Amino acid sequence: MALSEFELIRRYFSHCGAERADVLLGVGDDAALLDSAPGQDLVAAIDTLVEGVHFLPLAAAASIGHRALAVNLSDLAAMGARPAWALLAITLPCVDEPWLAAFAQGFGTLARAHGVALVGGNTTRGPLSVTVQILGHVPHAQALKRSGASAGDAVFSSGTSGDAAAGLALEAGRLELDDAAAAAQLRSRFSFPTPRNALGERLRDLASACIDVSDGLFADAAKLAAASGCGIEIAFDELAVSASLVRAVGMERARHLALTGGEDYELCFAVPPARIEELERALPPARWEYRRIGTLRAAPAALVTRGGNVMEFSHSGFDHFASQERAE
Amino acid sequence: MALSEFELIRRYFSHCGAERADVLLGVGDDAALLDSAPGQDLVAAIDTLVEGVHFLPLAAAASIGHRALAVNLSDLAAMGARPAWALLAITLPCVDEPWLAAFAQGFGTLARAHGVALVGGNTTRGPLSVTVQILGHVPHAQALKRSGASAGDAVFSSGTSGDAAAGLALEAGRLELDDAAAAAQLRSRFSFPTPRNALGERLRDLASACIDVSDGLFADAAKLAAASGCGIEIAFDELAVSASLVRAVGMERARHLALTGGEDYELCFAVPPARIEELERALPPARWEYRRIGTLRAAPAALVTRGGNVMEFSHSGFDHFASQERAE
Repeated sequence: MALSEFELIRRYFSHCGAERADVLLGVGDDAALLDSAPGQDLVAAIDTLVEGVHFLPLAAAASIGHRALAVNLSDLAAMGARPAWALLAITLPCVDEPWLAAFAQGFGTLARAHGVALVGGNTTRGPLSVTVQILGHVPHAQALKRSGASAGDAVFSSGTSGDAAAGLALEAGRLELDDAAAAAQLRSRFSFPTPRNALGERLRDLASACIDVSDGLFADAAKLAAASGCGIEIAFDELAVSASLVRAVGMERARHLALTGGEDYELCFAVPPARIEELERALPPARWEYRRIGTLRAAPAALVTRGGNVMEFSHSGFDHFASQERAE
Repeated sequence: MALSEFELIRRYFSHCGAERADVLLGVGDDAALLDSAPGQDLVAAIDTLVEGVHFLPLAAAASIGHRALAVNLSDLAAMGARPAWALLAITLPCVDEPWLAAFAQGFGTLARAHGVALVGGNTTRGPLSVTVQILGHVPHAQALKRSGASAGDAVFSSGTSGDAAAGLALEAGRLELDDAAAAAQLRSRFSFPTPRNALGERLRDLASACIDVSDGLFADAAKLAAASGCGIEIAFDELAVSASLVRAVGMERARHLALTGGEDYELCFAVPPARIEELERALPPARWEYRRIGTLRAAPAALVTRGGNVMEFSHSGFDHFASQERAE
């Protein structure tokens, strides 16, 4: 799209409805914060997956059910909120009972694992797409936002990045890999991503800002920086990549994919320097699997550095489906 | 669809997620009831409109924006809840700024009229469809449901029915009408339906059950009856039809359309006989525009009567887009 999703939403929808005093945070972050009860805020997010855009035609229904919920759980993880309830709107070309059973199994398994009740829904006939709306809670005024970090804050990212993009390339037949175990692991990272809700809740007291990585680590870290009124410097050689990804594409390309590949649903978060020791004590990095990848700067640009030099790198370093086809 | 929406949801989604004690009413009514704060329940609903299913290709964007919110407002009206917040997921084939501006105007005008803030959203590229998720409040344990009515309760319906189906037939060129004012009124009833939220809130203390009329008065009144463990008898000659509809199709066909035509978004509600006087005193029928159309019965069937006899009538009495094409 010529107009970015961000700009489109800002231009047409940021002041579209009524102004209400109980909207603590509206359009523009990972989720909305609503003043719903004393002591806690209601957290709400919505996401759509469309066939041919967010999943391949003929994708396994269990994966579609899992991912439709996972991307929404991940939005709540990024706010440090605990998910509670989901609503589901499915548009289907026709009723296919085995498909529905597999979809419900994929959705339901993840929902039960996170204690999320499916409380409402709507089915419609039309081109295959799935919209999930999620609701959760966070103690009043304690939600993590994209904004709130300062220049000098350290930037961390959880897990490994780039796996989902390679997994999608394998699914789509655009990448080949003889190592069956590594291929299965990468495919699973795309088809059954793990939203980092336990980490998000624990970061509430420690991080100054947080975002989930859906559009690629570079793009999403830059969004966090911009929302916090900062720039960012990411150290290319600090990017965490999985052994499977390195096996599939080599170390150099793996780190490029880690920067630009989307759909990993890891968390990227900032922590003030004075609190890093507390972070690492409360959440040992080896157990919670996160790693420092950079630093917020006062100057506004988003840069990637290697050996002290600013790197030239291309967003289109890897022909992955997500960045080409997604509306965002 | 071979499997009805109701059966599909029951089979695959009614026990799909976690079981939670704070879900007061889950999948299956017009909206979910969630225990969110002392003294009030959170009410949540979701609905999708798909191009070619819920609106015609080339439908005016302002109408799509209005209707996407109106159908959700109507779900809250049926629960007697007051709407507060909405989330919007739009899937668009491409960015068309005049279309978006008109869509946002249609959505925003209705949102502001009901005091609803748009608090979150998501835009995606794909076949045109719009999903709105709405949240509102109702005093604890006072929500209206489809269940709760008893045999002998009087059944009422607000406004006039069948107009939207005729309006859609006019839009689609399947019906012609020389009377321009009547045609404009019918088209507007389809394109810019008025959800009955003020009436829904006032009915909270008076009605024993309530549903909004999206699939046609006969079908939705039968759902209310079934959810309440009753049958229903509707008096054909008591159905309220507009002068415009009578002008368009004649009285006989107008009443058939009033029974089977969908998309009117009026309310159908039940009131115990002992409370009818109180209803009519609190909400004078001439001002609030509702009319008794039938009675709940102990026997389970849904019947239409005329002059004391059970009428034979066909659900496909009128070739309207909605009942043919909608997934439900």
